[in-house]
Amino acid sequence: MTLLYEGKAKQLFTTENENELRLQYKNDATAFNGVKHDIVEGKGRLNNEISALFFPLLEEAGIPTHFIKRLSETEQLVTPTTIIPLEVVVRNIAAGSLAKRLGWEEGIELQRSIVEFYYKDDALGDPLVTEEHIALLEAATVEQLEEMKRLALLTNKTLLSICESANLLLVDFKLEFGMTKDCELILADEVSPDTCRFWDRDTLQKLDKDLYRFELGSLTAGYETILERIGGVVHG
Amino acid sequence: MTLLYEGKAKQLFTTENENELRLQYKNDATAFNGVKHDIVEGKGRLNNEISALFFPLLEEAGIPTHFIKRLSETEQLVTPTTIIPLEVVVRNIAAGSLAKRLGWEEGIELQRSIVEFYYKDDALGDPLVTEEHIALLEAATVEQLEEMKRLALLTNKTLLSICESANLLLVDFKLEFGMTKDCELILADEVSPDTCRFWDRDTLQKLDKDLYRFELGSLTAGYETILERIGGVVHG
Ligand SMILES: Nc1ncnc2c1ncn2[C@@H]1O[C@H](COP(=O)(O)OP(=O)(O)OP(=O)(O)O)[C@@H](O)[C@H]1O
Ligand SMILES: Nc1ncnc2c1ncn2[C@@H]1O[C@H](COP(=O)(O)OP(=O)(O)OP(=O)(O)O)[C@@H](O)[C@H]1O
Ligand SMILES: [Mg+2]
Ligand SMILES: [Mg+2]
Repeated sequence: MTLLYEGKAKQLFTTENENELRLQYKNDATAFNGVKHDIVEGKGRLNNEISALFFPLLEEAGIPTHFIKRLSETEQLVTPTTIIPLEVVVRNIAAGSLAKRLGWEEGIELQRSIVEFYYKDDALGDPLVTEEHIALLEAATVEQLEEMKRLALLTNKTLLSICESANLLLVDFKLEFGMTKDCELILADEVSPDTCRFWDRDTLQKLDKDLYRFELGSLTAGYETILERIGGVVHG
Repeated sequence: MTLLYEGKAKQLFTTENENELRLQYKNDATAFNGVKHDIVEGKGRLNNEISALFFPLLEEAGIPTHFIKRLSETEQLVTPTTIIPLEVVVRNIAAGSLAKRLGWEEGIELQRSIVEFYYKDDALGDPLVTEEHIALLEAATVEQLEEMKRLALLTNKTLLSICESANLLLVDFKLEFGMTKDCELILADEVSPDTCRFWDRDTLQKLDKDLYRFELGSLTAGYETILERIGGVVHG
């Protein structure tokens, strides 16, 4: 059980089974490409629980994912992949870097959902890239791009419907995809309030990592609200 | 003859004929979104002469342009348009913001030429935009985008062949398109060493506005080399 990779928010360990990895959610909160960093007690458990609820619902909707099963409060078993070095972002409402890029106020509803690609490279600050840049970088093939767009929009549709029932607005979210050893493209990484913007549908209150980024209130209180509303059990 | 618009590098005046505008090239050199600014004697004339040589060659290649005729050392007559608020950039070799975005060394030849769009908005710093952003901004229709890409690549093909004869490397360039009152999409603005990167094919010496941006040598000496090599007459 060696540590394969340690990121800012998670650790990946091998298991005895080469077709399974152990994904451990950490309590580290980071923002602005690692400039802001804190330990937030309970965050790892909340993201693990939330991801472990979302992934099976996405599978049911026809999206292949790396999720195998929840192992413990902070761990899940996942399928190993070679991660495609692109962050795939879907947006329904202007916020974050889109609001900045277009000079739009946060909260403006987009006429239609859009998909963006960012090149996963911390040293470059994860820049926005077009499909032509992606071809130059050989970061993904045209077929992989089309499949990622299709799965990202299907994920959006699925999450939007879950959010509606949970009285949440799904503002935007970031996905990562990977290739299995059988060359299947599957959804990997996490689907949590670290990687999705969720707002309360009535008050527009933020319930995601923006609470931490901009010090707007308790991160764990927001994440607990998400977990509760999507049917999870909030301990403690 | 009222001043319609004064930019950083040019002035646009009305004429007695509503189908014609007078475009005056100024001696102002600017860089980094206007942060750097100087007056460079002779620059307006050089850009006017160079643009006035390129535009007819582009017309011959089937690209409709706003150019009507050269009027004087620093002026040309052009067709009025409503400018589409996008900078259309074609790249053959990594330089400038592409080199920075992808983390590539300047001078790497791209496997294939690419077209990029930047939203013309000084306050936002002319950000890179994808076709989905352009749709959200309603900056151009899908048909206009396709036509701009086609004309930009045809411009590239034409300029590449001129450059080859002139012993120049065409690294990249920026175009602006506009709609005439008859709803024709035409190439507008300028095609000059202010808006194109030209390197000497043998020495790789820069002969364009990067001379000014990074203080690498005489701007007018570089522009005179371009003018001479494409068959123009260098006075003085
Ligand atoms: N199924 C998987 N197979 C292989 N790698 C995975 C899988 N799921 C997630 N990963 C990778 O594991 C790492 C998760 O760690 P974490 O989220 O902490 O990274 P990070 O700090 O966000 O850094 P990064 O910029 O690498 O995403 C990421 O690099 C992610 O791409
Ligand atoms: N045929 C045309 N009809 C209308 N406008 C034109 C035409 N050709 C060029 N223009 C516009 O005239 C201006 C040229 O001025 P200049 O190049 O100095 O502008 P600038 O300082 O680069 O500013 P910006 O391009 O950001 O407006 C540009 O705004 C350009 O879009
Ligand atoms: Mg991550
Ligand atoms: Mg200009």
